[in-house]
Formats: sequence, structure tokens, C-alpha cells
Amino acid sequence: MPLVYGDMASGNCYKIALLFSRLGIEHEWQGTLVVHGETRTEEFRALNPAGQIPVVVLEDGTVLTQSNAILYYFARNTDLVPADPLLMTRMLEWQFFEQYSHEPTIAVRRFIQKFLQMPADRRAEYAQLEEGGYRALGVLERCLAENDFLVGSAYSLADISLYAYTHVADEGGFDLSSFPAINGWLDRVQGEPGYIGMNSR
Amino acid sequence: MPLVYGDMASGNCYKIALLFSRLGIEHEWQGTLVVHGETRTEEFRALNPAGQIPVVVLEDGTVLTQSNAILYYFARNTDLVPADPLLMTRMLEWQFFEQYSHEPTIAVRRFIQKFLQMPADRRAEYAQLEEGGYRALGVLERCLAENDFLVGSAYSLADISLYAYTHVADEGGFDLSSFPAINGWLDRVQGEPGYIGMNSR
Repeated sequence: MPLVYGDMASGNCYKIALLFSRLGIEHEWQGTLVVHGETRTEEFRALNPAGQIPVVVLEDGTVLTQSNAILYYFARNTDLVPADPLLMTRMLEWQFFEQYSHEPTIAVRRFIQKFLQMPADRRAEYAQLEEGGYRALGVLERCLAENDFLVGSAYSLADISLYAYTHVADEGGFDLSSFPAINGWLDRVQGEPGYIGMNSR
Repeated sequence: MPLVYGDMASGNCYKIALLFSRLGIEHEWQGTLVVHGETRTEEFRALNPAGQIPVVVLEDGTVLTQSNAILYYFARNTDLVPADPLLMTRMLEWQFFEQYSHEPTIAVRRFIQKFLQMPADRRAEYAQLEEGGYRALGVLERCLAENDFLVGSAYSLADISLYAYTHVADEGGFDLSSFPAINGWLDRVQGEPGYIGMNSR
């Protein structure tokens, strides 16, 4: 079965757990902590030169990296990856948006606040990332005010990718109370079959 | 024909021009400059709430965003998108790596140096991004020391995505002279059918 190197407190890793639970994919989980430097060792870098989690190792030794690419690999033949080319493009749009505009603001602020506990030398960065994070949330809100899910009207990998850090944005100092459409969507994702929480492991 | 809102000096936009030239896709190009604030207007945000270029508008009015998703839309039925699921996953891995680790270091340093001309208030950021940029180049070098192209042995969208900012990394203060495998690959990309340079428009 696949072996996942990850940390459930990391949204990028949690995405994999959420998908595997949905699809009933049995796997082993090797806890790997960024804050303990476990992604910076020689051994880990031999696995993933970029030094990032999650990493998934298949039974034949094939190594997969990049959370959203891993989701694609395991979900490609399911209804979580749209067959329609335009909807597939929309799914990718959201996932690239997530990695470029959403994760680097919301996840980084959460990391600074929750895991590093606001060290003095990261406070300027923390403050600076607030605007971009709210801008990303605004883009989400605008879409979800018109749609139940991010792509078409069905749950897809885009929802898994964006849910991961959005639902814990408060841990990065973001107030979600003025985003009613996002809150409705968080509830819908939590109601999906196979849903598991971030602290379930 | 498709209408592209972009700036050829932006690697993310240049990717689209490079693909369209390769595939012979006729299009209109609407010059849109970030430095002139043209992506921050109400009108532009109605097109793309994230306020980013490139944006492509299809003849029926459909709006596409996110450079790597746009590449997928137009190339999906060509040999630039691998049919094999593992190779497709590898292509996505490189594209997510590009947007998360490569563009935010190399493109941002290039923007600060070449377009903003090193303002005092961005110099600390410029210095800070050097290490991450060289780390991203190191990941590329490691792959290209063993392979002619990034995915399998054939030119794919991954090469277009990573070429865009790598070939102008010197404009962000990166010295490519100690990356022989990257230099060989840059030459191979430039030898591909339909290649056009960044300054061809």
C-alpha cells in the first residue's frame, strides 16, 4: 500500500488524508515534521529534493510529490476529476491559485502564529501577508456566492485543495465571520462522504 | 480567435505565446502591464478577480486564468500533455513546483531588479529570495543531469512552464554558469519547433 510522509497539521498533507478517506485507499502514514527539521535531512532530500511534504511512495518505489499532483494521481478516474475539458481546466485554475495566492498567505500566517508562536523576526511578514490572504478569501467568496462547489456544481479536487487551509484560516488570524458563502461551503465539504477532520489522526 | 491579456516580459504570459507559436494557434494579444496598474482596475478584476495576467478570453466569452491551467486547456490533446497517468502527474508536479518554489523566488527577484530597479524597500526581500531561487535551480539541475527534458524524455508543458523564468534568471541576479544541465536544456528548448523568444513581440 502507498506510504505517505506527512503531517496532518499541514493542510497540504491533510488533503491526501481527506482524499484517501473519501476513496477508501488504504495507506501507511509516516509522521514527518517540518518544525523538527525532518524534511531537511539528507535522507528526506533523496526522496524529494525540494524538501517538502507530502511525499507518497507507491508499492513499486515510485515517488510522488506536490500535494495537488498527488491528488490527481489517485483521483484521476473518479468523479472528483471532471471529464469535461473546461471543468478540468477550472479545477487546475483553482489548484494553481491555491498554491500561488492562497497557501503562501493563509498557510504561512498560520504556521507563524500556531507553530512558531509569533517570533519577533516573522511579525513583519505576518502583518504583510494579511492583505493577500483576505484577497484570496475574497476570490473564493465571490465564486461560492454563486456556486455550491468550486467547479461546476459538484465536489471535486478543487474543493479538497482549497478546503485544507481555508477551514483553519482562523489559526492564521483570519476572521471568516464576514464570508457567509465560504462558511456554507465549509459545511457542505464537511458533509461529504468520507469526510475526516484534520485532527482525526 | 482567443484574446490574450498579457505582457511578453512576464514569464507567465510568455508561456502562452510560446505554446501558441508551437501549436500555430492564432490569437489577439492585448498588452496589459502590471507595473502600470492595468491588472488592478475594476474592469480587469471583473475579468479575473485575482488581478493576475495572463487571462485568455475564448470566442464564446469563456475566461481562462492561471498560466499553467491555460496551457493545459489548449494543449490537452497534443503530445505536450502526456497520456500516461504517471507522466501526466510528473508534469503537474513540475508545474506546481514552478508556481510554488520557482516563480515566487526567481520571477520576483527579476521583477524587483529589472522592472522596479531595486527600490530600497524591496532590497531585503531581494536578498532573502536568493537562497530559495538557487534551491529551485538545484532541483531542476538534478533532474536535467539525467534527462533531456523534465518529464520522461519528451518535450512537454512542464518544459514550457519552467523555461519561462529560468532562461531569464540572470535578470534576477542568478548566475547560471554553474548549472551545465540547465544550460543544455535551455538550448534544447530553443531548438524546439515553433520556438519564439521573449522579445519577439
